[in-house]
Amino acid sequence: MAGNSIGQLFKVTTFGESHGIALGGIVDGVPPGLELSEADLQPDLDRRKPGTSRYTTPRREDDEVQILSGVFEGKTTGTSIGLLIKNSDQRSKDYSEIKDRFRPGHADYTYQQKYGIRDYRGGGRSSARETAIRVAAGGIAKKYLAQHFGIKIRAFLSQIGDIQVPVQPLEKIDWDFVNSNPFFCPDKATIEKFDALIRELKKAGDSIGAKLTVVAENVPVGLGEPIFDRLDADLAHALMGINAVKGVEIGDGFAVVTQRGSQHRDEMTPQGFCSNHAGGILGGISSGQPIVATIALKPTSSITIPGRSVNLQNQAVEVVTKGRHDPCVGIRAVPIAEAMVAIVLMDHLLRYQGQCGLKNEA
Amino acid sequence: MAGNSIGQLFKVTTFGESHGIALGGIVDGVPPGLELSEADLQPDLDRRKPGTSRYTTPRREDDEVQILSGVFEGKTTGTSIGLLIKNSDQRSKDYSEIKDRFRPGHADYTYQQKYGIRDYRGGGRSSARETAIRVAAGGIAKKYLAQHFGIKIRAFLSQIGDIQVPVQPLEKIDWDFVNSNPFFCPDKATIEKFDALIRELKKAGDSIGAKLTVVAENVPVGLGEPIFDRLDADLAHALMGINAVKGVEIGDGFAVVTQRGSQHRDEMTPQGFCSNHAGGILGGISSGQPIVATIALKPTSSITIPGRSVNLQNQAVEVVTKGRHDPCVGIRAVPIAEAMVAIVLMDHLLRYQGQCGLKNEA
Amino acid sequence: MAGNSIGQLFKVTTFGESHGIALGGIVDGVPPGLELSEADLQPDLDRRKPGTSRYTTPRREDDEVQILSGVFEGKTTGTSIGLLIKNSDQRSKDYSEIKDRFRPGHADYTYQQKYGIRDYRGGGRSSARETAIRVAAGGIAKKYLAQHFGIKIRAFLSQIGDIQVPVQPLEKIDWDFVNSNPFFCPDKATIEKFDALIRELKKAGDSIGAKLTVVAENVPVGLGEPIFDRLDADLAHALMGINAVKGVEIGDGFAVVTQRGSQHRDEMTPQGFCSNHAGGILGGISSGQPIVATIALKPTSSITIPGRSVNLQNQAVEVVTKGRHDPCVGIRAVPIAEAMVAIVLMDHLLRYQGQCGLKNEA
Amino acid sequence: MAGNSIGQLFKVTTFGESHGIALGGIVDGVPPGLELSEADLQPDLDRRKPGTSRYTTPRREDDEVQILSGVFEGKTTGTSIGLLIKNSDQRSKDYSEIKDRFRPGHADYTYQQKYGIRDYRGGGRSSARETAIRVAAGGIAKKYLAQHFGIKIRAFLSQIGDIQVPVQPLEKIDWDFVNSNPFFCPDKATIEKFDALIRELKKAGDSIGAKLTVVAENVPVGLGEPIFDRLDADLAHALMGINAVKGVEIGDGFAVVTQRGSQHRDEMTPQGFCSNHAGGILGGISSGQPIVATIALKPTSSITIPGRSVNLQNQAVEVVTKGRHDPCVGIRAVPIAEAMVAIVLMDHLLRYQGQCGLKNEA
Repeated sequence: MAGNSIGQLFKVTTFGESHGIALGGIVDGVPPGLELSEADLQPDLDRRKPGTSRYTTPRREDDEVQILSGVFEGKTTGTSIGLLIKNSDQRSKDYSEIKDRFRPGHADYTYQQKYGIRDYRGGGRSSARETAIRVAAGGIAKKYLAQHFGIKIRAFLSQIGDIQVPVQPLEKIDWDFVNSNPFFCPDKATIEKFDALIRELKKAGDSIGAKLTVVAENVPVGLGEPIFDRLDADLAHALMGINAVKGVEIGDGFAVVTQRGSQHRDEMTPQGFCSNHAGGILGGISSGQPIVATIALKPTSSITIPGRSVNLQNQAVEVVTKGRHDPCVGIRAVPIAEAMVAIVLMDHLLRYQGQCGLKNEA
Repeated sequence: MAGNSIGQLFKVTTFGESHGIALGGIVDGVPPGLELSEADLQPDLDRRKPGTSRYTTPRREDDEVQILSGVFEGKTTGTSIGLLIKNSDQRSKDYSEIKDRFRPGHADYTYQQKYGIRDYRGGGRSSARETAIRVAAGGIAKKYLAQHFGIKIRAFLSQIGDIQVPVQPLEKIDWDFVNSNPFFCPDKATIEKFDALIRELKKAGDSIGAKLTVVAENVPVGLGEPIFDRLDADLAHALMGINAVKGVEIGDGFAVVTQRGSQHRDEMTPQGFCSNHAGGILGGISSGQPIVATIALKPTSSITIPGRSVNLQNQAVEVVTKGRHDPCVGIRAVPIAEAMVAIVLMDHLLRYQGQCGLKNEA
Repeated sequence: MAGNSIGQLFKVTTFGESHGIALGGIVDGVPPGLELSEADLQPDLDRRKPGTSRYTTPRREDDEVQILSGVFEGKTTGTSIGLLIKNSDQRSKDYSEIKDRFRPGHADYTYQQKYGIRDYRGGGRSSARETAIRVAAGGIAKKYLAQHFGIKIRAFLSQIGDIQVPVQPLEKIDWDFVNSNPFFCPDKATIEKFDALIRELKKAGDSIGAKLTVVAENVPVGLGEPIFDRLDADLAHALMGINAVKGVEIGDGFAVVTQRGSQHRDEMTPQGFCSNHAGGILGGISSGQPIVATIALKPTSSITIPGRSVNLQNQAVEVVTKGRHDPCVGIRAVPIAEAMVAIVLMDHLLRYQGQCGLKNEA
Repeated sequence: MAGNSIGQLFKVTTFGESHGIALGGIVDGVPPGLELSEADLQPDLDRRKPGTSRYTTPRREDDEVQILSGVFEGKTTGTSIGLLIKNSDQRSKDYSEIKDRFRPGHADYTYQQKYGIRDYRGGGRSSARETAIRVAAGGIAKKYLAQHFGIKIRAFLSQIGDIQVPVQPLEKIDWDFVNSNPFFCPDKATIEKFDALIRELKKAGDSIGAKLTVVAENVPVGLGEPIFDRLDADLAHALMGINAVKGVEIGDGFAVVTQRGSQHRDEMTPQGFCSNHAGGILGGISSGQPIVATIALKPTSSITIPGRSVNLQNQAVEVVTKGRHDPCVGIRAVPIAEAMVAIVLMDHLLRYQGQCGLKNEA
């Protein structure tokens, strides 16, 4: 399987460069009979879209997705679904300066070394713009999972730089609030701090890392396959595959290093689990508890502070990224992370059904 | 692809339960002409083997691997390699008590819920014993990568509980020392602290988490495929798929959250990279720098401190795990993590050659 | 892997219904640096296109393919290539009559039974129109294989109904002649007979089967993987996957049943093979001889002679297919068969390089 | 996916050389709860086994399969099943003469060219002995399909050389008779003719081709996935992947070339299909009718009549195959063909369930 596909039964394959003609994808394995239209996918695309607030890049993209196949009279037919997003706002000239030089910390260098050629316009295939199609594909999974199992997959920003969102119990999160503020932040008080930090960074021409948490609720017990395609392993694959992600945790994550077994293990009573240190996955298989994953996103390398680098001839150059860029790419990753989790859960739901038979629906 | 396989071109498929007749695996896609015998694989199996020190479970296993095919007159033939490790020391009676109850925090519960049946003897398929075959398969990859590219894949324990190994530059690590002490610890002074902690835990009948770091040196630039099968994504998949792992970091990992772009980006000069915050991977493709990954392993749930749980009839029970168990499963994970990284690098090396042609060898 | 993909390293995934908005596909794993534009793909699409002669359906399609990604400044970049063909001439009203009934011998029935819903317009996903994207994708493979290895993949019609093209040695075939007549027929004398038969069938409102032969020359020795992904097995998969194909032969095919070993085996001398009964494949691996495959295509079920069938309510109905249909779908299958063979050879070439290293180029 | 695996959800991976230590395989994706023991698999292995009659090679093999994992207390657990068959009777000296020369028409040449090394003992991996594990794996599928859906997969020999078994309606075949004679022949009168032919060939030191027909009854409607993984395409892949197979037909196969649409299409009435020219598959999806496939097997190249060939140094040599060989390898292919069809149907049944939900069982 070549690298632009993910999933076994629910499979997503994508194409498209940041400043090419269009982005697109194919979603294969969608169960027939699901009501589906562009209107189901657009809201998440809009959440990901840059230019919607002053905290993200001012690049305006319409990100309007079109369903080209696989839906007939409003319902999925079980055949592959073609998705297309045309690129409209392509200020290619912004990028001409980096044509023959590598932005430090950027995929410029490795793409050039691997392929001997690269579409340098806007980062080409390595641009975060590529994730728009993942969000659209994830939207199909989200709708199916919600409709058939009541599964809710939602993410929030838990940290930018040193500013942490105070820990709060999952059941107390006000998701409407999360989705109505530009930081996907569950805590009112933190928003102002985020705002101040981003303003400062914009002035400095610098960027900052972020952390976000994805929660999937109502996931039935039994999803995930030993030994290699464990649910947590596949989630790690999907989440680490998001641009800029450098770390993935399931449940307590790195905090387990200092925990004792007597403290970490989630005890059970006839009423259910007493805690959720495991983050909803035991032995690679979902336990029926909420699945909780946390990811770390690095600060983007596209900044206006000059940096040392080399050009195609391996001569020393100084690089300043002009273009239009987010000071914190982590913010827009919220709908992307949700989409990736949705794709993985959908795939494992179908795989479960394949081997073990039908899951009782919600 | 069902769940017991990993890799596309270099593919490993495994079978076997902790207390079944044997463990085994098939390694497909091995390049022809590699000199190979059991003697190449046994050393890593011995490093993983329990019963070799007082810090791990006293269960004695021979873990003697047998190559059943794919090697002729001392060289690989390009056909699939069958691996077999017979189970000898199977004290099944130890486990009869957990036959109809679930150890809290253990895969007992999820296997039973998923499949409606489980081999409860020694954890069955969910036992860490299963990883022996991964170590053997990884040994084949390790040998090829070392011989053809000088790639070295090595890991060390960087933390147990609150005890951290002092940070040290990669180039200063004494790998012989790491591999000659039972903790795979690079720092002499820390060993005593580890020792004291493990003794205390044994007395308490409890367990503890750990952190370990894997380093792959001399990896050529260009391995890894956008968009989904990025090298970091595939490493995350492989490492999160190790029993007990709850977190994976590449390079600076979660530390990137508080970094600025100007600080995180690895600047370049004609002499090469000036730092390695990225951990050797940019845009999902290896940069030629050392690849550095860190993983968190949870404390095993198999402890002698009683815990609340339920039985098959969902009645409240108290569970005490007898059997023989490691107080810190993270220790033995060192050769396993190396093996998983080797399998991923080998697969991506072959994938590189498939699409982009031959890599210059070392 | 869901059903709309083919290939491991060179992978083609498609979408699109006959009367939907567009057909499209993604070609993943293309080696970087190949000069490529739409002009490379259009000629084969035009060969497949209906409406070009009176022997095929008068439906006019432009079949203009657009490359949406993966090509930069005229060369492939190694990233996935998006292909799009918009549907223009969609006379959907022609098909309204078969909305709730099944054409006998058609996929109508099985799609409806499998999915509980189907896009009945023009056969939806089961229409031969879907193969346009395969032809475009195969065109990329063809160009690479020709340029790097001098591989030529060409097909001709060898039989329609009872009319057989006289057997002729491969090296004597005038391929220009084959491609300049509407029957892809290598023999002048046979064309008139074909013509007369097709005229008769059009009058009768009936259809007829056909046989065609694909030949791939200059294929290097060593392509194909034991045990399951033999080159012949993968060719059989690819060719049987073409609409209407009911039989596939490699080399002598079914004639081997009556052959003796002393007669069938291709003897060798230092100058090479003495014959090619095997059709260029031994033990599932290419031998360096021309690869020869023959396929049988059934007569289309879309005919105007009334047939007994049932409707969605399983009531007896009589079905007459109006629309515009080929009396012999086998004719247009020539470029499709070439494309499928090209996709398989390309995939196995990359797989060869992955495991065994570079092939010497032509 | 490397070449030694077949199937997506029900996946079989194998290893082993003819004269190595053992053959083995892993069957992944088996539904949990199936009663299974070696006794379920041995009968088909015995049917395939050489040395059971004077019509096949006198090599004695025990072919005793051992289940190493995935079964607990007599039932499958849903984890991967390890299979092992030890090689006992290995008269390697018989083959020393072909060590540095290629039998004409044999995989010797292509394996050597591809890998630069080969296990020449008994044909190594290219030996038909490898199919023993396929038969064992297919036995698991057969049992599940029979138990849950009443599916019966059976094959018979329909032709050896010029001697054809008279055509007979499927429903009249006496399968007990087929399986009680050494030719798997449904017609008493033909057996004597087969016998005479084989005797003659043994004397002549020659071999002969054969044709066989596989029938799968009670297959539910809806199995098979457009576009590439059609059921017929996957059957063609699986059947062409059997050693010596050079042709595959579904339903009427090559006879469709001379048929008209009005004659070929299977009309339907409320009582069902009126004929089965399609062989149970329409548009790549099972129709609910019996699936009928026919395959052609070439005469083995291992004969005692001297043949011209070359050695490793490309010098002219004369080759005489000593060893012990079948004059007609097609005979023993009967249980192999059944196994391959069972593996494909099982895989597509699980894939159906994955996407479309549960099939009603028999």
